[in-house]
Amino acid sequence: MSDMYNYGSFTMPGESGYEVLTLQLAQKWGSDVIRDCDGTKLSEQLLSAGMDVYSTICIIREHNTFINNHPQYQQQVFLESERVLATNQDVSIALFNGYFTRQFSVNKDSVSYWQVFDRTTNCEVPRNNWSYSDETNSVRIHGAVLWHHYSVNFLAFRIWEEINMYNHVTNSWEKEPLKQLDPRYPEVQAYLRNWLTTWCEEHPETDVVRFTSLFYNFVWIWGSDERNPFLFTDWASYDFTISPLALEQFASEYGYRLTSEDFINQGYRNPNHITWKQKLMDYLWFTNRFVCSFAKELVDIVHRYGKKAYVFYDDSWVGMEPQSEAFGTIGFDGIIKCVFSGFEVRLCSAVPGKLTHELRLHPYLFPVGLGGAPTFKEGGNPSLDAQKYWVQVRRALLRTPIDRIGLGGILHLTEGFPDFVDTIADIAKQFRMIKDLHTRSSVYKVNLKVGILTSWGKLRAWTCGGHFHEHPDLDLINILESLAGLPYDVEFLSFDEVTKDNLETIDVLINAGFAGSSWSGGDHWKDDKIVMTLTEWVHAGGTFVGVNEPSAVQGYANNLRMAPVLGVDVDDGRRLCHGFWKVGEEASKLRLDIRKKEGVYLIDGETKVLQAVDDFAVVTQRSFGKGKGVYLSEYRYSPYNTFALRSILEQGIIQENLFCTDNPLVDCAYFPEAKTLVLVNGSEEKQSVDVRITNGMITTEVEGFATALISYE
Amino acid sequence: MSDMYNYGSFTMPGESGYEVLTLQLAQKWGSDVIRDCDGTKLSEQLLSAGMDVYSTICIIREHNTFINNHPQYQQQVFLESERVLATNQDVSIALFNGYFTRQFSVNKDSVSYWQVFDRTTNCEVPRNNWSYSDETNSVRIHGAVLWHHYSVNFLAFRIWEEINMYNHVTNSWEKEPLKQLDPRYPEVQAYLRNWLTTWCEEHPETDVVRFTSLFYNFVWIWGSDERNPFLFTDWASYDFTISPLALEQFASEYGYRLTSEDFINQGYRNPNHITWKQKLMDYLWFTNRFVCSFAKELVDIVHRYGKKAYVFYDDSWVGMEPQSEAFGTIGFDGIIKCVFSGFEVRLCSAVPGKLTHELRLHPYLFPVGLGGAPTFKEGGNPSLDAQKYWVQVRRALLRTPIDRIGLGGILHLTEGFPDFVDTIADIAKQFRMIKDLHTRSSVYKVNLKVGILTSWGKLRAWTCGGHFHEHPDLDLINILESLAGLPYDVEFLSFDEVTKDNLETIDVLINAGFAGSSWSGGDHWKDDKIVMTLTEWVHAGGTFVGVNEPSAVQGYANNLRMAPVLGVDVDDGRRLCHGFWKVGEEASKLRLDIRKKEGVYLIDGETKVLQAVDDFAVVTQRSFGKGKGVYLSEYRYSPYNTFALRSILEQGIIQENLFCTDNPLVDCAYFPEAKTLVLVNGSEEKQSVDVRITNGMITTEVEGFATALISYE
Repeated sequence: MSDMYNYGSFTMPGESGYEVLTLQLAQKWGSDVIRDCDGTKLSEQLLSAGMDVYSTICIIREHNTFINNHPQYQQQVFLESERVLATNQDVSIALFNGYFTRQFSVNKDSVSYWQVFDRTTNCEVPRNNWSYSDETNSVRIHGAVLWHHYSVNFLAFRIWEEINMYNHVTNSWEKEPLKQLDPRYPEVQAYLRNWLTTWCEEHPETDVVRFTSLFYNFVWIWGSDERNPFLFTDWASYDFTISPLALEQFASEYGYRLTSEDFINQGYRNPNHITWKQKLMDYLWFTNRFVCSFAKELVDIVHRYGKKAYVFYDDSWVGMEPQSEAFGTIGFDGIIKCVFSGFEVRLCSAVPGKLTHELRLHPYLFPVGLGGAPTFKEGGNPSLDAQKYWVQVRRALLRTPIDRIGLGGILHLTEGFPDFVDTIADIAKQFRMIKDLHTRSSVYKVNLKVGILTSWGKLRAWTCGGHFHEHPDLDLINILESLAGLPYDVEFLSFDEVTKDNLETIDVLINAGFAGSSWSGGDHWKDDKIVMTLTEWVHAGGTFVGVNEPSAVQGYANNLRMAPVLGVDVDDGRRLCHGFWKVGEEASKLRLDIRKKEGVYLIDGETKVLQAVDDFAVVTQRSFGKGKGVYLSEYRYSPYNTFALRSILEQGIIQENLFCTDNPLVDCAYFPEAKTLVLVNGSEEKQSVDVRITNGMITTEVEGFATALISYE
Repeated sequence: MSDMYNYGSFTMPGESGYEVLTLQLAQKWGSDVIRDCDGTKLSEQLLSAGMDVYSTICIIREHNTFINNHPQYQQQVFLESERVLATNQDVSIALFNGYFTRQFSVNKDSVSYWQVFDRTTNCEVPRNNWSYSDETNSVRIHGAVLWHHYSVNFLAFRIWEEINMYNHVTNSWEKEPLKQLDPRYPEVQAYLRNWLTTWCEEHPETDVVRFTSLFYNFVWIWGSDERNPFLFTDWASYDFTISPLALEQFASEYGYRLTSEDFINQGYRNPNHITWKQKLMDYLWFTNRFVCSFAKELVDIVHRYGKKAYVFYDDSWVGMEPQSEAFGTIGFDGIIKCVFSGFEVRLCSAVPGKLTHELRLHPYLFPVGLGGAPTFKEGGNPSLDAQKYWVQVRRALLRTPIDRIGLGGILHLTEGFPDFVDTIADIAKQFRMIKDLHTRSSVYKVNLKVGILTSWGKLRAWTCGGHFHEHPDLDLINILESLAGLPYDVEFLSFDEVTKDNLETIDVLINAGFAGSSWSGGDHWKDDKIVMTLTEWVHAGGTFVGVNEPSAVQGYANNLRMAPVLGVDVDDGRRLCHGFWKVGEEASKLRLDIRKKEGVYLIDGETKVLQAVDDFAVVTQRSFGKGKGVYLSEYRYSPYNTFALRSILEQGIIQENLFCTDNPLVDCAYFPEAKTLVLVNGSEEKQSVDVRITNGMITTEVEGFATALISYE
């Protein structure tokens, strides 16, 4: 590989006390930026080593002194107590049973926001029938109905910043636990403005203030029992933004009040994977406006000091909503996404605005990684880990430009892992090469536009919330991972956006997920107009691809409202006495690694079964007017399934497959203005490939994990 | 085996032209009754051979001449046409597309009972917007909404009696297809009274008129495509009882009208496995009263001629409802149930009244049996078939007295199967021996009363509708099959009967089935009082056993309303972001053959997991007050699972297991007044068993399939 790819676009973590190592690796990796991390500092020598300096700030923590004087400004959350059986008319409910008590303390001044529920009947217990006891930290209910279960929704302060809590507990830290501020309060805003101003003055060497991230963490409610340590975890719920002040401001802005039960929701809460009610969406936008407006104030301070402001797109990202209009008003100069997967590259790249788009690669330089597996310690193989993450990331990098990559963590842990150091050097070169091609050329795309229809639309473009390994069973995250490396335009549509005009440019519309999920759409499918518009669109030539329980909602003549288009429906037992069409299988080369879904049945004899498992249709196709419906019982990412998905998406639309390989393990991208074909081998072994080009076929081999360039006009 | 068991209580089919064979087998089997069958007649010689004579009558068919003159009296059914997409405002819908047209003809005079639906919106199309064309046999809709789907609910005559149709088509019969009458019409009633009177006069040799069965067949709607020949089949739906007259009489009796859509129900119809709305239940009782009152008139005629009237409990049984009060008023002298399984023995035995309870064993003397497998033809092994059915039946015969057994079909087909003839002779002896024990003694029962809670209660005691092989995946039918041979009192409760008083005598209450099914209970679980009453009952010491999705209904704080008692709930995806309690497994000897159910989770750390599969709890137990909740993810009948079920039901209630074996393949019954233990081996191989008795243990062996008697005081 040419020497021109040896330097730049690479951010490394530095570590005081390891100045020699830091500078040696900076040289090896071609770093142009050095950063500090949670737990590491940069010495004077490193700050002045000729690299730009990123300084990490977690704006809402590290203010314990202020918080100890103003505990009422801590962040809060609604919790539901355990449910207690009424064996007599007086029921006493301890608030924190089952919760990790170091995370929470009750907000005793918030009782007017609490609610007590008969969880047997779903009815609220009148305020006069219960009282809170400060001393016992419990609620006593009077006049309970015998043999019903009761619980209390109450407001608790979160007295330990969750990421700090996690690192503390995981690594048995001895440091002082960090508390967190809620910037919803004007007093906190004033304090933070001051604090940041002082910070900027005291850090002239900092080029980029890297916010990690903004104000509100993803929801992470801990339990008291090691058999169930994390009671609720969602990357994109808004539960951690709640405070009495927020509720009051919301009520005055929207003209109606949110209650504790809107958030507790019978104990189900509101994970972003389940379609939200309008109230919750109102609250999202309300919070988004606040988060972005106060973030702008902070960024303005940073800019006043001639520094840039980047934001880390993780952890305390809630309310930021990078796809929102408000985000654009903040004025961030860069956004940094940590990535395990291809879809996260697209997620980062899709953030609009003239920002620097930077990826933080994995593994993080830490003794242990995912699920406690060893990384930079005995038994770990960080070089192989890095390769495996990289090949996922690289597929997506072929399709979309990214400005920078980098690492994070504790640099000296790389000692003893020279393979890893070499691998990173190689990855950095590959990255620069691909970035260079994007600079010199567009990348060839197949003339096929894919739409993804979800409750969220663009707001959750290229994500289902969180990393792939958090919810690997969601069909859509698997589809996104496949699409991340495919040469299509992809557009994300919400149900409001299902209009004839918006659909006009879409060739294939995908709706994928389990019933009720925000990915399938849940109650949005009660809108007849959606069904009608899509039916007309397919009839005119569109392809509607449904996966798992697409368009599923109860109360209609089909369980899947798009069943007439898809040609399949999903029985919930009500058709136990109906006959089922025998599932014949058409001659088809399609062989997805796919499981049957119980209950899937053909609505009549017109639906073609492209693949079947145990007499259940798992892939079907049905002509509908000039268009077609396609059904898949599930979708799981793999190179082979991606290959098959491609043929499903293009079938009947794309006649000639150009610039793609015949080998699912090798992806190909063509940069016409650079006259270059890029082949990337996602497997550890050498692969042979045929690549179809306009005037024939190129046959070649690509080494394991390698990136190969072929000149081609 | 003693010679005393050589004769009686056995009904055989006779066959003209095979008089020698018939009499020889009568001798061999000890037959005291001879019968005719569909397709066979009895000659003078057979009628006067000293056996009582059963004559088979299917009262509503064999009247083609009358029907040809009065086609308006044929039976009917509501059908839904196919669903047609509106690509313009005029939509034409052919009525019979997809239906087997030899079964149906449109009732052109019934248009006022028809309805047209927009199946996209669930809205009815106003009557003015559609018209029926006699010539094209289609409905034309005007002013349709584009891209919606439409269908027509219409009333069709059923012009071929379904059992005759089945035999015709299956056996390529050449005979004239038989039509069927609807006795709802007074003119038909008059005709049938006359006809039966004449028949009785013409058949002095008949001792027992065996009605096969009454008026309305189980629902069986046929399709036109061999890939889906049976569109809807339910043993216990009332769709085949409908006529304009019935609808009018219902309206005047109940003060409200039933519509076609009450029966079509968005195309789902109303299988008896799904909880019925009150309207449908009203219609059931309305029909039951009519069926039983007219049946009584017919039985009275039979009695006037000094004959007895038996009814076959199958085929055209709808409306008869042997567990209804009205059934008792008919005055039948006997009821005959064909049996493959143990639960069917209990179903027959449970029919109240001083009737002869008779079983017709399988295999039926026919060339092919279940699913077209060979029986009395090359490749068949009817002797082994008979043994395998018999061991299922025999388990239940140990627990409840039955008066008679018998066979049906074409006798000469037994030629060439001497093993079969011997097997039947042996079965008949075993039967007489067990019957004799019941005559001389009570049978020992464990002091444990099991309640079965379903939407149907007693009305579907010992059945889920139809034979085991029709719906082998229903948990309850599997439980009933196990219970059929267990030494408990079993009571069937409907939700109306869940009262403190009724529960007092119940030790263990079982609720088993998928969500929405009539076996689980569906919307009945919306009644808070049910939940409260059961919660109190368990807290006071009861055991609530839930299987699959017990107490499941949507809209509450748990998906299973009894979750606090069971200690488990079933997630539908809404808890995707909740933590799940780690499933540890208690030391337990329990090893059911049982599959996991996705979504099942422990509600807290208090629930004991007795068995787990892939980290999913499949059997759990939870203390609740003085009682307990037990959950099973599914239940499938097998001797081994029955053995495990027994220990689950008795656990904590029964201290000492008396008169049961340690071998799941060998059942034991104790007849104290006869001082006899009976051991029955359900397997083909010899088995060793230990039987716990009051003062020790008996160790013995039982030959394959054999019944062994042991004297014991």
